[in-house]
Amino acid sequence: MTTTIPRDQWYVAAYGSEIGQKLFSRTICGEPILFWRTRAGEVTAMSDRCVHRRFPLSQAPSRLVDDQVICGYHGFTYGSDGNCVFVPGQHRVPRTARLRSYPLAEQDSLIWVFIGDPAKADTSRIPRAPYLASPDYTTVRGMEPLKARYSLLVDNLLDLSHETYLHGGYIGTPEVAATPITTEVDEDAGIVYVSRHMDDAECPPFYAKSTGLRGRIARWQDIEYPPPCLYKLHSRIAAPGSVPRPDGSDPDAFHVEVVYAITPETEHTTHDFWAVARDFALGDDEVSEFLAENNRTVVLQDVVALDVLEKVIASEAEGYQELSINIDTGGLAARRMLQRMVAP
Amino acid sequence: MTTTIPRDQWYVAAYGSEIGQKLFSRTICGEPILFWRTRAGEVTAMSDRCVHRRFPLSQAPSRLVDDQVICGYHGFTYGSDGNCVFVPGQHRVPRTARLRSYPLAEQDSLIWVFIGDPAKADTSRIPRAPYLASPDYTTVRGMEPLKARYSLLVDNLLDLSHETYLHGGYIGTPEVAATPITTEVDEDAGIVYVSRHMDDAECPPFYAKSTGLRGRIARWQDIEYPPPCLYKLHSRIAAPGSVPRPDGSDPDAFHVEVVYAITPETEHTTHDFWAVARDFALGDDEVSEFLAENNRTVVLQDVVALDVLEKVIASEAEGYQELSINIDTGGLAARRMLQRMVAP
Amino acid sequence: MTTTIPRDQWYVAAYGSEIGQKLFSRTICGEPILFWRTRAGEVTAMSDRCVHRRFPLSQAPSRLVDDQVICGYHGFTYGSDGNCVFVPGQHRVPRTARLRSYPLAEQDSLIWVFIGDPAKADTSRIPRAPYLASPDYTTVRGMEPLKARYSLLVDNLLDLSHETYLHGGYIGTPEVAATPITTEVDEDAGIVYVSRHMDDAECPPFYAKSTGLRGRIARWQDIEYPPPCLYKLHSRIAAPGSVPRPDGSDPDAFHVEVVYAITPETEHTTHDFWAVARDFALGDDEVSEFLAENNRTVVLQDVVALDVLEKVIASEAEGYQELSINIDTGGLAARRMLQRMVAP
Repeated sequence: MTTTIPRDQWYVAAYGSEIGQKLFSRTICGEPILFWRTRAGEVTAMSDRCVHRRFPLSQAPSRLVDDQVICGYHGFTYGSDGNCVFVPGQHRVPRTARLRSYPLAEQDSLIWVFIGDPAKADTSRIPRAPYLASPDYTTVRGMEPLKARYSLLVDNLLDLSHETYLHGGYIGTPEVAATPITTEVDEDAGIVYVSRHMDDAECPPFYAKSTGLRGRIARWQDIEYPPPCLYKLHSRIAAPGSVPRPDGSDPDAFHVEVVYAITPETEHTTHDFWAVARDFALGDDEVSEFLAENNRTVVLQDVVALDVLEKVIASEAEGYQELSINIDTGGLAARRMLQRMVAP
Repeated sequence: MTTTIPRDQWYVAAYGSEIGQKLFSRTICGEPILFWRTRAGEVTAMSDRCVHRRFPLSQAPSRLVDDQVICGYHGFTYGSDGNCVFVPGQHRVPRTARLRSYPLAEQDSLIWVFIGDPAKADTSRIPRAPYLASPDYTTVRGMEPLKARYSLLVDNLLDLSHETYLHGGYIGTPEVAATPITTEVDEDAGIVYVSRHMDDAECPPFYAKSTGLRGRIARWQDIEYPPPCLYKLHSRIAAPGSVPRPDGSDPDAFHVEVVYAITPETEHTTHDFWAVARDFALGDDEVSEFLAENNRTVVLQDVVALDVLEKVIASEAEGYQELSINIDTGGLAARRMLQRMVAP
Repeated sequence: MTTTIPRDQWYVAAYGSEIGQKLFSRTICGEPILFWRTRAGEVTAMSDRCVHRRFPLSQAPSRLVDDQVICGYHGFTYGSDGNCVFVPGQHRVPRTARLRSYPLAEQDSLIWVFIGDPAKADTSRIPRAPYLASPDYTTVRGMEPLKARYSLLVDNLLDLSHETYLHGGYIGTPEVAATPITTEVDEDAGIVYVSRHMDDAECPPFYAKSTGLRGRIARWQDIEYPPPCLYKLHSRIAAPGSVPRPDGSDPDAFHVEVVYAITPETEHTTHDFWAVARDFALGDDEVSEFLAENNRTVVLQDVVALDVLEKVIASEAEGYQELSINIDTGGLAARRMLQRMVAP
């Protein structure tokens, strides 16, 4: 099978808060990976398959004892570096008894793993989302499993006109579908930008209830997407006519940083990580609960639609046709970048 | 994959009563088709896939508003002719934004669609079953989904000797399996006829309870099958010795027209439409309920058997063998006609 | 697909006690086989597919009447030799209307069928396990369906070091994994022997509760496996230092004969027959219930692990690697023998 998943790339594997001193397994880009946090606080990432007979090290009765994982089938035991330290029935441990380990970075509250050739794992290439771990923001987050190929989620997020139809009553208003977008592609930096500035728009419940704004608003959506994984929507909500100050500060607006990490689980399933960071109502639990609940609902609306679409596309004959229009400019640019990453 | 489904043919897609002023989707011969009845009462039939990103137009939140269907993903909007009248984010609607529409006819209470090249859609080729919509008959009907290829249902219906075994206690009696059939094939008209005239037979519950006849009966089964879709069983029940009059009238007999529409949903699933029209006990609800319940039970006995058979055949090695006998003459003739329709 | 299942071999299809005067179907090596016991007490084995249209003869409303099976679809009727004696709608029964029948032997409480060329079915090649039907032993038994290829069960049973990890608290103790094995392969007889003699070992609950022994024990495990089907573990439990007498008798020890029949159902599923025969506490129901319950639990622990492993291996890329060590010597020898049986 030809893959559609770029390799030699960093992907978000988990939130840091998901990994504790117990075995945790997640498949990333088709590779089953075992994670745990050592007693020293470091997160490990190694293959979730015993070298002996491929038993999953995350599967009971496999267990973690003192920073070592013991295979539940025959007792092969590995340290946090993936090296085998014990095998049954003999004293000598074969030199090749070693689990593949993955380059890993914990940054901005996210656990990143590098899928591909470890020699190419340059942590400086990991895109940043500092607000997710900043005290100046309050963040809610979640992850929903998607039974659809990751490219359907890329399409979805690069074209927000669907908010009006799929997410009406939550984040969609007529202006989103009606307002033209501007798209910019930075081929050198490898980033797609899509902007939609609505200067006189209805305020959807998502922002009305969280900001307290009533009546018409200025609503700016600035998407920044460095393929393949991290998608950032810089959302600015303010009174109509309000603009940032010349020095770049913007004290009269509300800012919401909506972040998605689009991580392929397999060719046809995706981990849909989502986070909403705000610079207002900090620490206000009522606002946090509302935004978490509301955004989760929106994500699940996408999940239902994309799961359907995956089945539709999987059952299409080869070479089925799509018809693209202006709103698709950003999505098509992202597709081209992703294709080049897969087959340079 | 090689198809076994004839194209350039009319197929029953639904009962007219199934289609109202709301979105209705059914897959016919592998093609997902969207139906609705306009406010003027016309039934439409078009592709159930938005031209933009293939979202199903029957899938919520897609919706029908004033004879237009609005895609629930990005709002593409289509009229009852399949032409797109609105797209988001721009004024111009691309000229190619048009859903494939299907030739359609509503006749004898059935909705027929033409699968294949629309230029070949000659409505005069649609076989008739006028009793299904005649005031001289009372009809009960239903549709059961079959997880089996349509040809297994053709085999089943062309050889009624199985009534004795699979439907004993309902419509089967020993005479059905014991009485030889006569088969006639009209190659020009493209019709298979299979007849079994039992002149002194047990009366099965299906006819005993509906006609009130007791004791032995004459029971004639005359099958008329113009492949691929419409199967008609003309069933005549009377006192032994009773025959139609020379002028063709037959006032002393009970007539039941059993109609099946055999519509492939996919290569391995089938819509099993069934209807039972009678020229006696007109409007008698008790008889209607009995016949509906009884025939549905019989159809479900077939469904169970054919679903099993589909799994059996799907797991057979290529080139498995069958052994055919006299009772299979009609079914084999039908198979040959269907094969010629698939690959002329 | 290339098969991994040896043909021209005897396989255990059932326990004799499973087959009575009613239809019983089981798929052996991919072949659906119909069994029943005639009124004379003989067990029959024939294809579970009607020659006419492949309907399963074990599927209701097919039924057994007076040593004849009547197909539930069209009434084809077969005798216990597989020959057809009745077809509907005609008097002549086609000469080729005959079900494939399988060589069969009932021995040691087991029903053996020969899969492959019947001319090669030499009953003297069937391996023996006489204790399963001997009055000198009391036996408990069962069968668990495995959603894993049979070779995973062969691996499992040939390497008992897994008892320590997967079956700790039941039959595993530290000594099993720690004690080296000796392996012997009799290529002429086609038998793999694996022995592990623990002369000073902890007594696991399985043996403590059944024998009444307390404290340390001598525990001998002698495996005898003539591929493909019958696996025998001769287990000897005694006080430390106790050995059999020079004449071969061994009155001071407890003997448990653990027998598995490893019968492929399909390429990826297996019938896991297990029996535990003991030469002590004969007829003691409490001991029987304990051993049955305990061994079934152990088998189900294997089932869970091997079902997981099947999914793991089925999703691996071709050419995945394993790392074998000393404990695997017997399993690797068995694999080689099985491969030669498949492709001599």
